[in-house]
Amino acid sequence: MEGASKLKISSLTNFEVERVLSDDIFSKYVAVLGRFRDDDNSDCQAILRLSRRHFDLENLPALFSSGLQLDLDFHNDIYSKFAALPSEKFNYVTVDAIYPCTSKHISKFERKPVHMVRETPELYRNAILPYIESIPAAQTQWVVNILEGKAEVERVIFMDDNLDSGFVLLPDLKWDQIQANQLYCVAIAQRRDVRSLRDLTAQHLPLLENIIKQGSAVIQNKYGVGSECLKIFVHYHPSYFHFHVHLMHTSQGSLANGAGKAHLLTDVIDNIKVFGSDYYQRAVLQVEVGEGTDIMERISSYSREK
Amino acid sequence: MEGASKLKISSLTNFEVERVLSDDIFSKYVAVLGRFRDDDNSDCQAILRLSRRHFDLENLPALFSSGLQLDLDFHNDIYSKFAALPSEKFNYVTVDAIYPCTSKHISKFERKPVHMVRETPELYRNAILPYIESIPAAQTQWVVNILEGKAEVERVIFMDDNLDSGFVLLPDLKWDQIQANQLYCVAIAQRRDVRSLRDLTAQHLPLLENIIKQGSAVIQNKYGVGSECLKIFVHYHPSYFHFHVHLMHTSQGSLANGAGKAHLLTDVIDNIKVFGSDYYQRAVLQVEVGEGTDIMERISSYSREK
Repeated sequence: MEGASKLKISSLTNFEVERVLSDDIFSKYVAVLGRFRDDDNSDCQAILRLSRRHFDLENLPALFSSGLQLDLDFHNDIYSKFAALPSEKFNYVTVDAIYPCTSKHISKFERKPVHMVRETPELYRNAILPYIESIPAAQTQWVVNILEGKAEVERVIFMDDNLDSGFVLLPDLKWDQIQANQLYCVAIAQRRDVRSLRDLTAQHLPLLENIIKQGSAVIQNKYGVGSECLKIFVHYHPSYFHFHVHLMHTSQGSLANGAGKAHLLTDVIDNIKVFGSDYYQRAVLQVEVGEGTDIMERISSYSREK
Repeated sequence: MEGASKLKISSLTNFEVERVLSDDIFSKYVAVLGRFRDDDNSDCQAILRLSRRHFDLENLPALFSSGLQLDLDFHNDIYSKFAALPSEKFNYVTVDAIYPCTSKHISKFERKPVHMVRETPELYRNAILPYIESIPAAQTQWVVNILEGKAEVERVIFMDDNLDSGFVLLPDLKWDQIQANQLYCVAIAQRRDVRSLRDLTAQHLPLLENIIKQGSAVIQNKYGVGSECLKIFVHYHPSYFHFHVHLMHTSQGSLANGAGKAHLLTDVIDNIKVFGSDYYQRAVLQVEVGEGTDIMERISSYSREK
């Protein structure tokens, strides 16, 4: 048997499905765990992630003229519905494979049910804040590297190095940087003392307003997307606790901006201005929390002890 | 030429693409406008909406064993990426056709850019409220019919007929009522004097709390979905101005719950309780507004006049 990292996949014919780790009807995606039945490495598991390709808009005339085979499902007046079979070349599927995979990979791709939790200021102080403070600084070293120009330098779109109101703007890795209507950028604050939405007060308005103003202007200049077509928001809970802001085209089909997770930055500013500097310290926020995550663990044990 | 409503589609081979009305990379969907080149009705346009099918999870073993043809894109250590071609029967596409179609159909399927608008209380009073008041009552007659038991009676899951805090619960038409993790229901308030989120005050807390409490209990009993897995929210702006609430499974990939549109009902209740009964009359709310809609028209002409 070769070294584990040298195993190669040459065919999927002998792939034996063990179980579906996650799937999404909406985006036509499935992640499957299994083994290759007949090779020498049958003790190794593999994860295959399949996703349907989008239609190639350039080649739509070819798609039609090559003759879609039609099966009528239903006809009523001007409306009809068919099951259609495009000719071969239009049916490619993308397969991402991890082989061999570890239990860490499995757990990463396994769907975790998401729960809605009502986070009171008290729950924040007693369960969430201690969790945030327990995270080793090393986990956000990559952010510091970006801010200090030690990493991803060539990806930086814009940098304002004011330590109070400054930020670095980068394209999100999910964005191909080609299609403007899929635009997705991230602004990372220079200051390191804002862990999340919960820390924001009137003192941070210059930072927030600067991100909206300069971030929009840079995006308008570089990508031609107007500020009226930008959805600018923060995640709460965020995936890392160094203050950062998402800037996304309004036509984006992303789930990143869902209620219970995304808070629009102008709403944040207006809440602080209209209802008081301590709005986010007093607010009760319903948040999405994944089952089995560290945060959920803290919330559960706090609720049990209380 | 036969009556327009009798035109039938027998093949797509001669469909001539005029333009793409809308498409979505995320959900693999495209709506195309065009004509059938060689028939007698070449003056008639047709809209074809194509969407890729999700993988059939039951038949995954068959998908693999039938042999996906593999093209390696990339290999690095344990990671690899392929373009794969499943055998024919796994490649069906759903085609919904409207033929002949009218300009109304075209405009319905044409992607309208969505803009972010900062709605101040002043903008609400001077542009949005007059618009809401101009909508003829007949437009929500269908809601009244449901409340009065004159329509969709067999679809009603639960009815509380208290005129102050009562509501009717129905499945949303987008939900197949089979897959619990795709659950999507709507609760429509019995009272007719709440047009939207903007009207809510402490006076409506019994209604809001009743929808959360009884709505969740009914869904738990009937579909086995616990309240911790329910995202309960209102849309602002809503699609019709009779107060109603969306209840959706947290695992849903729907875009219905995006920031700038969805407001979680417990957040609404907590805002009113913590920051005052008039929270939603004082709040500034950033909202998504479609270009070319009546509301955008009102907003623009108000902004011009000011």
